[in-house]
Amino acid sequence: MNKPVLMKMSPLKEIELKPIGYVRRLSKREDVKDRSLISHIIVRKELAKALEGVEGFSHLLVIFYMHEIPKEETKALKVHPRGRTDLPLLGVFSTRTAYRPNPIGLTLVELLKRKGNVLVVRGLDAFDGTPVLDLKPFDSKDMTLNAKVPEWHKKLHS
Amino acid sequence: MNKPVLMKMSPLKEIELKPIGYVRRLSKREDVKDRSLISHIIVRKELAKALEGVEGFSHLLVIFYMHEIPKEETKALKVHPRGRTDLPLLGVFSTRTAYRPNPIGLTLVELLKRKGNVLVVRGLDAFDGTPVLDLKPFDSKDMTLNAKVPEWHKKLHS
Repeated sequence: MNKPVLMKMSPLKEIELKPIGYVRRLSKREDVKDRSLISHIIVRKELAKALEGVEGFSHLLVIFYMHEIPKEETKALKVHPRGRTDLPLLGVFSTRTAYRPNPIGLTLVELLKRKGNVLVVRGLDAFDGTPVLDLKPFDSKDMTLNAKVPEWHKKLHS
Repeated sequence: MNKPVLMKMSPLKEIELKPIGYVRRLSKREDVKDRSLISHIIVRKELAKALEGVEGFSHLLVIFYMHEIPKEETKALKVHPRGRTDLPLLGVFSTRTAYRPNPIGLTLVELLKRKGNVLVVRGLDAFDGTPVLDLKPFDSKDMTLNAKVPEWHKKLHS
């Protein structure tokens, strides 16, 4: 591998992002892990036009910022997946834990409807008030039928 | 829909993220759109432990920041997909254009190898030096076999 002589460390400088909108749960008490539930994504009004045509897609990838994670918790390097000590201690990038250096969430949701600047979606596991960073229409390039996962992962749902 | 009385606009305040690493292309002249090419993700050394176990997965979702997009271009609300005027003018959130409010990229890659803090991947369509924000192991929850896409999308590869 060549030395990164031209890097000047600029790829690691901090990045500022402004949310494009936020999540609204229909009830603040519901279990966000229940993927059958519906929530709304309220996009900033001035970005409403940027949603035009999105209703042609059945599924979206939602990129959000888990703002309720305390700064302390983003310093974890290893976790037991879902806190389960029967599973191995793993690097956070091997898991989907929210306790990661940048607490970014990524979830595939079903798009049910668009009403102006509001998207009605099913399956978003984000709390009420979560800032949304981006929305991407899902297509076949976003998936593979050949994915392999480690043995411990198969126990997640057991 | 209830009024967002408790929002206080805080979900829209700016967010600061520090990249977890950056992309290295093997040659700076190669076509990043060629998904058969290999690139490296250099993770910050102090985060190397956070990669432990990731090699158990065959595929990763890479979330990166397209730092070469001029600020001006992030103000676009509508684009012709890939600049093709034979396709409709669409809201940027209906497309995968880099010209979006937060120029975040999301790509499914094949993980070939890990060497300490370096991941060797195939299929990452990011330029040399691109800051990486997060890495997620891909699993079956990240895909659906029932995705519908609009008619114009089917012409993208024609």
